[in-house]
Amino acid sequence: MMRHKAFARYLPLVERELERILSADGIPEQLRGAMAYSVRAGGKRLRPCLTLAACELVGGEIESALPLACAVEMIHTYSLIHDDLPCMDDDDFRRGKPSNHVVFGESTAILAGDGLLTYAFEIMLDACVRYAAALPEYPAAVKAIANGAGVCGMVAGQIMDLGSQHAEMPSDEMLREIHTRKTGALIKAAVLAGALVHPCPPEVLAALGRFSDEYGLLFQITDDLLDVVGTFESVGKTIGKDQAADKFTYPGLYGVKKSREKADEAANRAKEALSELGGRADFFMELVEDTLSRTK
Amino acid sequence: MMRHKAFARYLPLVERELERILSADGIPEQLRGAMAYSVRAGGKRLRPCLTLAACELVGGEIESALPLACAVEMIHTYSLIHDDLPCMDDDDFRRGKPSNHVVFGESTAILAGDGLLTYAFEIMLDACVRYAAALPEYPAAVKAIANGAGVCGMVAGQIMDLGSQHAEMPSDEMLREIHTRKTGALIKAAVLAGALVHPCPPEVLAALGRFSDEYGLLFQITDDLLDVVGTFESVGKTIGKDQAADKFTYPGLYGVKKSREKADEAANRAKEALSELGGRADFFMELVEDTLSRTK
Repeated sequence: MMRHKAFARYLPLVERELERILSADGIPEQLRGAMAYSVRAGGKRLRPCLTLAACELVGGEIESALPLACAVEMIHTYSLIHDDLPCMDDDDFRRGKPSNHVVFGESTAILAGDGLLTYAFEIMLDACVRYAAALPEYPAAVKAIANGAGVCGMVAGQIMDLGSQHAEMPSDEMLREIHTRKTGALIKAAVLAGALVHPCPPEVLAALGRFSDEYGLLFQITDDLLDVVGTFESVGKTIGKDQAADKFTYPGLYGVKKSREKADEAANRAKEALSELGGRADFFMELVEDTLSRTK
Repeated sequence: MMRHKAFARYLPLVERELERILSADGIPEQLRGAMAYSVRAGGKRLRPCLTLAACELVGGEIESALPLACAVEMIHTYSLIHDDLPCMDDDDFRRGKPSNHVVFGESTAILAGDGLLTYAFEIMLDACVRYAAALPEYPAAVKAIANGAGVCGMVAGQIMDLGSQHAEMPSDEMLREIHTRKTGALIKAAVLAGALVHPCPPEVLAALGRFSDEYGLLFQITDDLLDVVGTFESVGKTIGKDQAADKFTYPGLYGVKKSREKADEAANRAKEALSELGGRADFFMELVEDTLSRTK
């Protein structure tokens, strides 16, 4: 799916660093095993690649953004582990493999999530201290990730999503609000953090911010579409509210056809934001195309 | 219990700042309510007071350590919420009130814990950015707290403690290891973080580190003793292993009398470490006496 040649550089760096992080001394083996199981469970590493690409876009050394990139992936992974728990979405499978709590039990899964979240901050604060002299903006980058994952970002989106399952199908704005927080906030933070570590003109940061907002929306719509297309094999067919099951999704609210239109619109706005950045935004430009073509 | 006059200054500062933090814009009301319920549930605020006292001991402005102090209390609170969950310790009551999951349900309780943990880092990173020029050591202080709460600290202790409930009664060293991580690591981080924000001679930091190790042990032993004394009303009587129920405690392993001796020994070693610091360690000196007298 990811065609841009930079992925071939980013992915091994991210995988190697994640393995180094997971192999640190002093972590109890039960905790290490449960954390590693989900980190290794076949994620596409989209978020860490966004961080590294944003760092390169502003002319930074990607090595310096690697702790941020891995931390974002660890935070994303913790959110999936907690999301799958029986009292949350109650999913026994994740990416075709048994969920963390199915393999390790609920209590270990909760602690594996808590561990990954806290460890992500340990990694990032270690980098803040190491780069204090060379990269004084490092804490601002970590703050962006904390806010993206935090009580007005991802955790807010998760609690709103839980609530929505017991409520009337909410409005257009409510759906967008939930997904902006639940998925969009961490994606945006992943991009901005990569750009924030190094000196970055405010207009570049603003363009990346606008891109991230639209890309997060595009990602969520196509993710929802993939679920529906995968489940109902109903490409091109409008899904009615009764078919939307208990999931709170774009196809559930708008049907497949209108959701595709919304994805196209978000992709166009994302590319418009990138156009201000010229050729150095190629990675992100191709990513928009790749993401859009996931469901076509 | 807390006699030192500084508590009268610290406590209102901590309470006011915690309320300010909880009242921030943009937090969904369901999340805010669940987080606030546990933060307001009557904790003694021991950890934040340790942070503020350590900051004053090294000659710092306590205002600057307030974000760290509140963050430590939020992290402590998250750990209690997750600890009480049905799949963990399954406690329906905490400090005489219904546990978070009993009031708000399991899914909201998990997210309230996740929220408090992440929000603690949001608060601390905001302070890192605000104090970047004036207090360049701020990230090192936050790193100490992250490590105390992290996968070699508190989360490690929690997973080891879970394991111990299904294992043979472990050895002396195992008991100490679990409690050092589960309780001691965050207490030590609370002290060191307060001292690290400001320039602090290494020998002062070392003395505070030795004090914290012993104080954490003292705190855990007296906490365990309070549970037993409260439950069995058996002051001065040795509790056999069969009476220790499924809890992994000092009285369970050593009996009440020997546990009291161990508390006395830890208190003496804590005071010995403090004696190097002279009169400015009065707060901590009195705290050792207060903690020791909890079970007498």
